[in-house]
Amino acid sequence: MVAGSSAVFAGGVIAYSNPVKHDLLGVPTALLQTQGAVSAEVVEAMARGVQRLMKVHCALSVSGIAGPGGGSEHKPVGLVYIGMALGDELLSFEHHFGGDRQAVREQTALVAMGHVRDALQKI
Amino acid sequence: MVAGSSAVFAGGVIAYSNPVKHDLLGVPTALLQTQGAVSAEVVEAMARGVQRLMKVHCALSVSGIAGPGGGSEHKPVGLVYIGMALGDELLSFEHHFGGDRQAVREQTALVAMGHVRDALQKI
Repeated sequence: MVAGSSAVFAGGVIAYSNPVKHDLLGVPTALLQTQGAVSAEVVEAMARGVQRLMKVHCALSVSGIAGPGGGSEHKPVGLVYIGMALGDELLSFEHHFGGDRQAVREQTALVAMGHVRDALQKI
Repeated sequence: MVAGSSAVFAGGVIAYSNPVKHDLLGVPTALLQTQGAVSAEVVEAMARGVQRLMKVHCALSVSGIAGPGGGSEHKPVGLVYIGMALGDELLSFEHHFGGDRQAVREQTALVAMGHVRDALQKI
C-alpha cells in the first residue's frame, strides 16, 4: 500500500472461505458449487459484491490457484481469474501465470492493477 | 498467506476509508471523530465488526500510523493499536514500533499473531 492511497482506495474484502464469499459478497452458492471458487463467474460475482459493500465505482476481485497445492488438470497451479465491476459493467479475465506461489501473487497484483488502468483509460 | 490456511482463516476486511469502517464494520462515527481511527476504542469496534461479518470466534483488527506521513505529537509514526474480539471478550493493545513503513507493517503483523497465540493459550 502506498502512503496517501486512502484518497482513492476505500478498502477490500479477503473472502477466504466460501461462506464469506456467499454471506458477505453475495456469490450464489450454486455458482460456487458448479463453477468452483476459481472461475470467471465467481470473480464477477465477487467484484459486484465488493463494489456494493464498499460503495465504489470500480471494484476488483481475484481468485486463483497460487500453489504449491490445489492444482488439478482443469485448474492448474497458476490459473488466476480477475474480475472487475466498473459502474454497471462486469468483466473477467483468465490468466495462466508461471513461477512459485509468491510469483503468482505478485503477477496477479500487477496485472489486476493493469486491468484497472486499461479500463480507466477507456472512460 | 500460508497454503492451506483456509481451514482456519475465514477472511478479512481492509477498512481503509472511514465510511467503510462505519458502514461495513459498524464503528460509530462519533468514535471516529472524537478518538480518531488510530485509537483503542476504534480497533475494538473494528474487531467486533469483523467478528460479526465473518461469523468467527476470534477476530483481529489493526489501525496505526505506518509513516512516513500522518504522524503528530500525540500520535507519532509507529503508533499501532491492535484490537481483538475473542468470543464475548474485547481487547486492545497499544504499540510503538520503530523503523520505516515496511518495518512497522511487519512488526504489526507478527505482534498481532502473537496476541492471538497468547489468547488461545489461555483458553
